[in-house]
Amino acid sequence: MADPEITLRGLQPDDRPALARVLESCGDAFRPEEVALGLELVDESLDPGPATDYAWTIAEVDGRVVGLACFGPVPLAEGTFDLYWIAVEPGSRNLGVAGRLDDAVTEAVRRRGARWLLAETSSTPPYAPAHAFYTRRGYSLLERIADFYRTGDDRLTFGKRLDQG
Amino acid sequence: MADPEITLRGLQPDDRPALARVLESCGDAFRPEEVALGLELVDESLDPGPATDYAWTIAEVDGRVVGLACFGPVPLAEGTFDLYWIAVEPGSRNLGVAGRLDDAVTEAVRRRGARWLLAETSSTPPYAPAHAFYTRRGYSLLERIADFYRTGDDRLTFGKRLDQG
Repeated sequence: MADPEITLRGLQPDDRPALARVLESCGDAFRPEEVALGLELVDESLDPGPATDYAWTIAEVDGRVVGLACFGPVPLAEGTFDLYWIAVEPGSRNLGVAGRLDDAVTEAVRRRGARWLLAETSSTPPYAPAHAFYTRRGYSLLERIADFYRTGDDRLTFGKRLDQG
Repeated sequence: MADPEITLRGLQPDDRPALARVLESCGDAFRPEEVALGLELVDESLDPGPATDYAWTIAEVDGRVVGLACFGPVPLAEGTFDLYWIAVEPGSRNLGVAGRLDDAVTEAVRRRGARWLLAETSSTPPYAPAHAFYTRRGYSLLERIADFYRTGDDRLTFGKRLDQG
């Protein structure tokens, strides 16, 4: 099988239905209220009104939207960025899409002078692949707050230092 | 000297100038962009439009606004609240105002089922009194991310567990 063609691009006005499909397809990891919040951020980013601090990278495979990353600067910090969302639909995993998205986000924040790229995530089993992904991609587990999201669901903060080494 | 009378109340539409004065008087701890962000939250909270998740407690001493606390639920978490701001003007410190504000916030989030009340703060010397305050008030230092706000300025996360003991 030929390697699929992965293309990365910015957010476009007609992306909303495809992004809803991607987020909803990740139902193991995202609860309905998380999908709703993700789509609110899409809407806010597409609003022609005041600029937002959310930046998006969209991944297509053979012309079809299969993944997304959303990131932005942490308020009141200089050089620290949050990777708010990174998601690839289940049918398009193991193609290297998430790695390409992480590369693109890393490069984008590096150009903006990033020291840190952080990703907060849940400790629960559906996120085990995400933990492995972050570790593989050079993030370290920096912090853990027990029972942060709910009882038995800790918040883990992974981070990748970008101004060293 | 008689103990001063400390009164706590909610946010009122004409509070903005007094809150700007309080925040600006804390110039050792808050940079101009932090004061500006605080006032944006005041404006957002006073906006009669969509409800916000920011709640305010205002402290008066003998009828004059001298302190404020701003807090709210962490998005996508159940029972975890952030104490975004707690500030008392320098001339009114050591009267117990900050403790009264912390008591009121703690009680308010407890009524809303809080497990955690968290406060993120800077590691730099101007915040040393804040660190001592949180420790005295039963918060523990949960996390530290080096160089989070800028090089040499770590983020400390203090937290008070409210559903145990």
